[in-house]
Amino acid sequence: MPRKPSYDRDALIAQARDLFWQQGWAGTSLKDLESALNLKPGSFYAAFGSKDALYALTLERYAQDGVARLMAMADEMGPLRALKAQPHVVIDEREMPARACMLAKTYAELQSKGHDLADKAGCHMADMKASFATLFRRAQQAGEIGPDHDPDRLAARYQSDILGLRLSAERRDVNAVEIAEDIAADLDRL
Amino acid sequence: MPRKPSYDRDALIAQARDLFWQQGWAGTSLKDLESALNLKPGSFYAAFGSKDALYALTLERYAQDGVARLMAMADEMGPLRALKAQPHVVIDEREMPARACMLAKTYAELQSKGHDLADKAGCHMADMKASFATLFRRAQQAGEIGPDHDPDRLAARYQSDILGLRLSAERRDVNAVEIAEDIAADLDRL
Repeated sequence: MPRKPSYDRDALIAQARDLFWQQGWAGTSLKDLESALNLKPGSFYAAFGSKDALYALTLERYAQDGVARLMAMADEMGPLRALKAQPHVVIDEREMPARACMLAKTYAELQSKGHDLADKAGCHMADMKASFATLFRRAQQAGEIGPDHDPDRLAARYQSDILGLRLSAERRDVNAVEIAEDIAADLDRL
Repeated sequence: MPRKPSYDRDALIAQARDLFWQQGWAGTSLKDLESALNLKPGSFYAAFGSKDALYALTLERYAQDGVARLMAMADEMGPLRALKAQPHVVIDEREMPARACMLAKTYAELQSKGHDLADKAGCHMADMKASFATLFRRAQQAGEIGPDHDPDRLAARYQSDILGLRLSAERRDVNAVEIAEDIAADLDRL
């Protein structure tokens, strides 16, 4: 029977995610990671291979959690109410290391460098956009929004507004709750 | 008569702005700067003092240019038309080193570190928001938007949407022009 590793891999990935999410890719050194995760260089290498490989794992975790949470809300309250709740949910979590979206932060930091992790972040954002489009489509089928809207276009605008909201929520001079209310109210006019 | 410095300070600040804008604070080393600006360490120090001092100058330049461009548009075409043009203008410039807003990128990168440059970026964003509010107020006084709206709240939402749009414009899977059209169209419903 293989010996169980002496660390909890999932917990380490969650810790690394929070560090990357807060400090960014360039702002997080291998030393920062080894120290936060309490791993010696050899163990770090054995467990994750490299900083970039670990970063990719944290992006995946972050994106999967986000889609799962949205879809669970939609199952519970229906597609339109879930879309109206989402702006509040993403700025309301007290335990997040940052309010801005980790995927968007990664993309903004690394896309101009042509870095592989920017592509990965971009793919995860596209998946999230597709989830939004699915919910807009379901809301339309349920007659909750008018038949003339293009769900994909609605999803792109909605995601863009959410990305802006999450950036805005990091600012002290902005009332992000009002912005979230206004994004949600816009959906009632569709 | 003091000897004129052998470099064009304004041009160097513009070059440094583009480098910081594209690569971020952590992603731009002193060496990158010295090499891009073609300055020896001693000359760099004499001209700008430090990387952070130069970064602050580039933020200031970036912010002043943004406000001046917006206000020139408003003088030319009136407040509401300027606000409707702005989303297109900020994603349409071919020569920008990045589409995402430099102030927002700086804030997202450095705010969680408590870095002084994040405060500076935040102040510049607040100034920009105040300019948007001024234009919404003028549009209201001119009867171009309804009397019941709060210009400050409109400005906060509008700026948030623009920040999201500019992030979205860096993505290949998003039609940012459609999002800009939809932001502009929203203003007609006010």
